[in-house]
Amino acid sequence: MSLLVIGSVAFDAIETPFGKTDKIIGGAATYIALSSSYLAQQVNLVAVVGGDFPKEDIKLLQDHGVDTEGLQVKEDEKSFFWSGKYHNDMNSRDTLVTELNVLEHFDPTIPASYQSSDYVMLGNLSPDVQRKVIERMENKPKLIAMDTMNFWMDIAREELDKTIAMVDVLIINDEEARQLSGEYALVTAAKKIMTMGPKYLIIKKGEHGALLFQGDKVYFCPALPLESVFDPTGAGDTFAGGFIGYLAKTDDISFENMKRAVIHGSAMASFCVEKFGTERIVNLSNREINDRVQQFIDISQVEINV
Amino acid sequence: MSLLVIGSVAFDAIETPFGKTDKIIGGAATYIALSSSYLAQQVNLVAVVGGDFPKEDIKLLQDHGVDTEGLQVKEDEKSFFWSGKYHNDMNSRDTLVTELNVLEHFDPTIPASYQSSDYVMLGNLSPDVQRKVIERMENKPKLIAMDTMNFWMDIAREELDKTIAMVDVLIINDEEARQLSGEYALVTAAKKIMTMGPKYLIIKKGEHGALLFQGDKVYFCPALPLESVFDPTGAGDTFAGGFIGYLAKTDDISFENMKRAVIHGSAMASFCVEKFGTERIVNLSNREINDRVQQFIDISQVEINV
Repeated sequence: MSLLVIGSVAFDAIETPFGKTDKIIGGAATYIALSSSYLAQQVNLVAVVGGDFPKEDIKLLQDHGVDTEGLQVKEDEKSFFWSGKYHNDMNSRDTLVTELNVLEHFDPTIPASYQSSDYVMLGNLSPDVQRKVIERMENKPKLIAMDTMNFWMDIAREELDKTIAMVDVLIINDEEARQLSGEYALVTAAKKIMTMGPKYLIIKKGEHGALLFQGDKVYFCPALPLESVFDPTGAGDTFAGGFIGYLAKTDDISFENMKRAVIHGSAMASFCVEKFGTERIVNLSNREINDRVQQFIDISQVEINV
Repeated sequence: MSLLVIGSVAFDAIETPFGKTDKIIGGAATYIALSSSYLAQQVNLVAVVGGDFPKEDIKLLQDHGVDTEGLQVKEDEKSFFWSGKYHNDMNSRDTLVTELNVLEHFDPTIPASYQSSDYVMLGNLSPDVQRKVIERMENKPKLIAMDTMNFWMDIAREELDKTIAMVDVLIINDEEARQLSGEYALVTAAKKIMTMGPKYLIIKKGEHGALLFQGDKVYFCPALPLESVFDPTGAGDTFAGGFIGYLAKTDDISFENMKRAVIHGSAMASFCVEKFGTERIVNLSNREINDRVQQFIDISQVEINV
């Protein structure tokens, strides 16, 4: 099935305890598109970059089968730029620079060939822009998933709530779930958030795995216990890409299949953190992905009869 | 199979954000014995209390099928007493009072009828006393599991290392694993700790579940996402009791069965935190336990082919 991905395509500069990068390709939609490209039959990208964005990085996306007709290039403007520095525990980071540039007035257009996209992944962006994408799709997609972050909860809560009310799956982390719901216990937070619109909720807990909720059903997917995390940048987006990519590939939105999709998202994210930026996820084989998925199965599955 | 349990049988006074108790029955061996009594065919207790320990609390253990021949009663002394106060997040606590009393000179004796115990659970105690129990068993048990804590790492590291070298399974939490190994990443910590003696290692991560290691094999058992934790006191001991109790019941120490044992430990611990002290685990039905184990299966198991 075809998947429409929207989000930032941008430059990042990253510093971790293991080293630092110059400006490298980044952005939520970049990670989502690359990650989902290994699974979904067709990935359609809606995003905006400036004239400074290298043609070879656009070609990199195209080489992964990503359709870039919906990628606007504003020749006279600059691409979105984010720079951050991770603390020693790799769980927290300081933002050093945020230059919105082309993102400031991003008006997403959906090419005609994208209109029949079956699945939609709204990567982290202004909730206003995310909602425009939903409104501009002439055919209702089978499933809309959405990522967001605390930043939008702080400055655009009303807009955010409107967009959240329109999506099927919300994908956020534990702290964001607590902030969004005002509840500390994740089960309670999840129940509250599911009354806001989404039928499904995924709460990512970083090194502690991820929880999938639907009604009273819960699935807990572990994280692989890793010897080292090199760079967490993009791991959440890569998770979202693997999750929605697997749903698009299998075209099955049952809870049981969503569990498998969460495993695929987790597997893709586990690759992402192994190297800087997109380095690890631009060059994966199906064999590597299947082996990694198998590792998740091996660490979590048990033969047991009660 | 029969299980020998050693540890403290004591008084606790607990304060949580939900309320506080007077002196109630507590101690590692109390929780382990009660928890394992629902699973193991025979539980043999080695511990010491003072003359102040209520006869009805000893009878409570006996009513759960726990053999108390190895429970020394020092009529002229006082029982071990611990008092603690949990912080609002329930993950950290302050110790308000620790009175060693009878524990200070505890010299464990193993009754003849306990000598053929197949499984041994060394609850948290001075590593010196734990080792005496191993040395005083005339027949080598099938499996010895051990709990300990950072306190002993701080003040008795040499003694602790000697005892750890003699056990098959070490059960500790994530911070203790980091302290014991000097490694931050839990996989690396686990590898190092398994060179110290234990073939199996369980690292408990509280609300984030538990990891079981053997050689290169890893199993990740989730924690149930709970709406509220009322009192975490004894949860680790109750986990240990459920784990070793299931092994004793099934008499199978394969990795696959240890996974099931970790699920049973987790299920028993999930009851423990629902009420103050031992209140919830003194009165469980097999039906409740099986239903809880089923909940762990429901949240973690997936039908998937790679």
